Amino acid sequence: MAEPKENLQMEKIVSLCKRRGFIFQSSEIYGGINGFWDYGPLGAELKRNVKELWWHAMTRQRDDVAGLEATIIMHPKIWEASGHIATFSDPMIDCKTCKGRFRADQTGEIPCPQKPSKMVSECPGEKTEARPFNLMFKSHYGPLESDENVCYLRPETAQAIFAQFKNVLETSRQKVPFGIAQVGKAFRNEVTPRNFTFRSREFEQMELEFFIKPDEVIEAIHGSVASADVIRSSGRVSAHSESQSGFTSAATDNWGWEAWHKYWVEERVKFYEGIGLSRETLGFHHQTPAELAHYARACTDILFKFPFSKKDEHGNVTGDELEGIAARSDFDLSQHQRFSGKPMGVFDDELRAAWAKLPKEKQDELWKRYYENRKRYLEKSGVATEQASKDATEDANGLAKGQYIPHVIEPSAGVDRLILALIANAYSEITETDEKSKTETRVTMKFHPRVAPIKVAVLPLLKNKHELVGKAQEVRDLLRPWMNVFYDEAGSIGRRYARQDEAGTPFCVTVDFDTLGEKGDELKDTVTIRHRDDGQQERLKISGLLEFLLCKIR
Amino acid sequence: MAEPKENLQMEKIVSLCKRRGFIFQSSEIYGGINGFWDYGPLGAELKRNVKELWWHAMTRQRDDVAGLEATIIMHPKIWEASGHIATFSDPMIDCKTCKGRFRADQTGEIPCPQKPSKMVSECPGEKTEARPFNLMFKSHYGPLESDENVCYLRPETAQAIFAQFKNVLETSRQKVPFGIAQVGKAFRNEVTPRNFTFRSREFEQMELEFFIKPDEVIEAIHGSVASADVIRSSGRVSAHSESQSGFTSAATDNWGWEAWHKYWVEERVKFYEGIGLSRETLGFHHQTPAELAHYARACTDILFKFPFSKKDEHGNVTGDELEGIAARSDFDLSQHQRFSGKPMGVFDDELRAAWAKLPKEKQDELWKRYYENRKRYLEKSGVATEQASKDATEDANGLAKGQYIPHVIEPSAGVDRLILALIANAYSEITETDEKSKTETRVTMKFHPRVAPIKVAVLPLLKNKHELVGKAQEVRDLLRPWMNVFYDEAGSIGRRYARQDEAGTPFCVTVDFDTLGEKGDELKDTVTIRHRDDGQQERLKISGLLEFLLCKIR
Repeated sequence: MAEPKENLQMEKIVSLCKRRGFIFQSSEIYGGINGFWDYGPLGAELKRNVKELWWHAMTRQRDDVAGLEATIIMHPKIWEASGHIATFSDPMIDCKTCKGRFRADQTGEIPCPQKPSKMVSECPGEKTEARPFNLMFKSHYGPLESDENVCYLRPETAQAIFAQFKNVLETSRQKVPFGIAQVGKAFRNEVTPRNFTFRSREFEQMELEFFIKPDEVIEAIHGSVASADVIRSSGRVSAHSESQSGFTSAATDNWGWEAWHKYWVEERVKFYEGIGLSRETLGFHHQTPAELAHYARACTDILFKFPFSKKDEHGNVTGDELEGIAARSDFDLSQHQRFSGKPMGVFDDELRAAWAKLPKEKQDELWKRYYENRKRYLEKSGVATEQASKDATEDANGLAKGQYIPHVIEPSAGVDRLILALIANAYSEITETDEKSKTETRVTMKFHPRVAPIKVAVLPLLKNKHELVGKAQEVRDLLRPWMNVFYDEAGSIGRRYARQDEAGTPFCVTVDFDTLGEKGDELKDTVTIRHRDDGQQERLKISGLLEFLLCKIR
Repeated sequence: MAEPKENLQMEKIVSLCKRRGFIFQSSEIYGGINGFWDYGPLGAELKRNVKELWWHAMTRQRDDVAGLEATIIMHPKIWEASGHIATFSDPMIDCKTCKGRFRADQTGEIPCPQKPSKMVSECPGEKTEARPFNLMFKSHYGPLESDENVCYLRPETAQAIFAQFKNVLETSRQKVPFGIAQVGKAFRNEVTPRNFTFRSREFEQMELEFFIKPDEVIEAIHGSVASADVIRSSGRVSAHSESQSGFTSAATDNWGWEAWHKYWVEERVKFYEGIGLSRETLGFHHQTPAELAHYARACTDILFKFPFSKKDEHGNVTGDELEGIAARSDFDLSQHQRFSGKPMGVFDDELRAAWAKLPKEKQDELWKRYYENRKRYLEKSGVATEQASKDATEDANGLAKGQYIPHVIEPSAGVDRLILALIANAYSEITETDEKSKTETRVTMKFHPRVAPIKVAVLPLLKNKHELVGKAQEVRDLLRPWMNVFYDEAGSIGRRYARQDEAGTPFCVTVDFDTLGEKGDELKDTVTIRHRDDGQQERLKISGLLEFLLCKIR
């Protein structure tokens, strides 16, 4: 159970979100709808910034990732192939007395609707057997509401990437290793939405599927597979230098899934650090073999220590998941190949040439390992042993022809969770006592300038002085093409600063009489720039303002 | 019926979209799903650019618009209030023989599923009466699939803006007139999706609701309402100067709905011109009184002349709708006030003060006009006459207290239609005959640099010269933080130019031996920049490249 102090912290955050227009309850005027949240003016900007930074880092800043924007409703067979129709469910029971429906594993925690003093598990009403309740939102497309027209709202953005793998490969001039990135809405009909926006029914994902060669292929071409130690694990330096110029494909040629997996964990941590979440605020969970899906080779969750995060047995807060980075083998493409009947493999000239030059024993060894992986996958996926052996043989025979099905590393992040983490991380309170012994608590949202919804506020000292207002509007118009600027002329400068602190605006620019040259040419066309986090002020020339701000916010 | 030539043009566009990764059929490997389309790597960038430019122009470049990002699934009562549950439908009939379902107004055009030589209207099968088929996708939220848990995928983004009007007003420091902008997915279960992405079942909208004072309020405060002629209708100049600094709120203080409506039509046309759709490619449709909804005062559709657009009775192509700009009176906020029981009016001190100073006859005149508008709305909305009179009286009495319900101007644009218009507009073919008399048809996508998916391609002359590659990668890394850059070293320069022409990349930068200083210091650190549309080349210093490109693409 979360402790009262942590509940209080969440209450303050929820209250600020509503008061300042970060997050509202969806459909609030109709009493809301459980598990759905809207982003208000500041929240919408914050979210846009985060998505834009992710897209920029993951696609535009790299040569080896292409973007995709697929539909939310896709052919229902996609969810058969992905396993969501069969297994994406929670166990539910019905109470025959009160007709309530409950998560079977939570009956000890949920009060009985008819006798709330008792838990569902204690009430005498007869219960049904637990049955799986699928978490996908279901609908129908076309004019008939028949079983043939069932469709689902995607519960993740990843599957569209697999389904369009071949189209993207053929049109984007990419070669394995390369990735496909997508940002978009997903839906899960959670039985118990909770922790504000952390677990909601409609949410947004930022997912990369990074396709790599299977280790057997690497070994055939390069003789061996690089150890994961090739990635330096300081979290600050990876094989990637800061600029991508150091990142030649040659440097990663012999990377197998372990190196790529570690690489992407480090890349993603650097991303979080770059938008203000320090290493100390994060946690890691390396899934144990028992936790991993049968096809997965590893999964590392990047956690953030939320106010509602629970303590482990040692009393340490480990955090809740922001992102999972999974090594998913060739499961996904293989499934779509099986279900669609369309080949999902790639052809690699280098592999074919290398294979021909391998000694027979090496060929046999690699063939056998590839065969066994394929056979295990097929059997786990329900293919009968004989057929599995036959298909796996065919797959392994493909190696000599330069053919294989790519494996994938999947960094999958939740946008709304990240927004909540950024808000919780930024939230800062100061209680001040003024000369009249009146105490006031002021909130400052210490967002990293890269994600801050408003980058700079431009404030004329007084609103009834035409020259100040005109000059301030000039400054606003100078900056506005490059960043989100808030212009405010109402109230004392102190109150305007305080309002911007609460909005998380990192810089306030004030136009005063000095700007107009009333104290001489020295200060003419300079402005005061005030820093949010320490309240420090400095004087800058207007001509240097844009460059100063661009350096801070990019 | 579209003519063959126009069909051919659409076929070429559809083919290019798939071949170059602009647009794919959703779930193509499973045979597709009718009415759903995915954006590939180039399409995703094009769409991001368009949405970003809209958001920038509509919110960040203005003081008077706040953003919102609401959920797709909202409380179902919202769709009662908006009228979608009652009236958002097409008439459908069922055939009792073949069990087919058809649009009642299209039975003469649809072949009978059992005897395709006959149309449905000619087949002897007994038909049901025409019944309305609602176009909203329906689902259920929460663990029960009961009528109480029905929800809908929003068929438009606008309603969330109305539902959150008060929350945004209270948190954003805006005062009427101001707007709320939103970009997001919407869904309509079209019976007949058609014309490629023009009419699809899942699509994206960019909508602004711009809230204004009712004309009676303007008149009470300012004595009269500005004529719509205040907007100059050249389409190039509006009351807005190019920079917003000329746009003081004082200049628009006395604008009524007609001026605001005309203003927004002009603003939106300027937006389209700014991304490459010239006036000549656009058309306009001013809805006639018979076409307008009962609450609407005017609606101007901005059309684009698509290859599939039909000719009018004079043989002119008028075009198909990109955007509608509607003057919707106070209908939307009024409906949500009625259905939610939450007040949607605003309080205006200036109105209260002005009202008190008006002569009694003027008060009576304005009161009466406001009363009559309110009463007409209430009666049209199904409120009984007596109650309508009572409620309208109360509403009109609010004027003296400074209270009114804002009216709204709604510029509502379809993203996917705009993308299709940009693609159709950009598509350009040249057929060339080479020295061996072989003819080749080459496609150039002449996108405006602002929307082009790739802004610049960086090409080393040869890929096996380390110095050229290194220098080209330096140039790539210099530009990449600021724009989408494509780095390509494969194939002849001519082939690489041709590939970029097809992708619509406005500029190609080539790094050659001159860049390395092999012809002396004069040309050292210069590159060739090649212009897509005329093939012209010029030599530029690398140090000036970023600024050159930024000026072109912004």
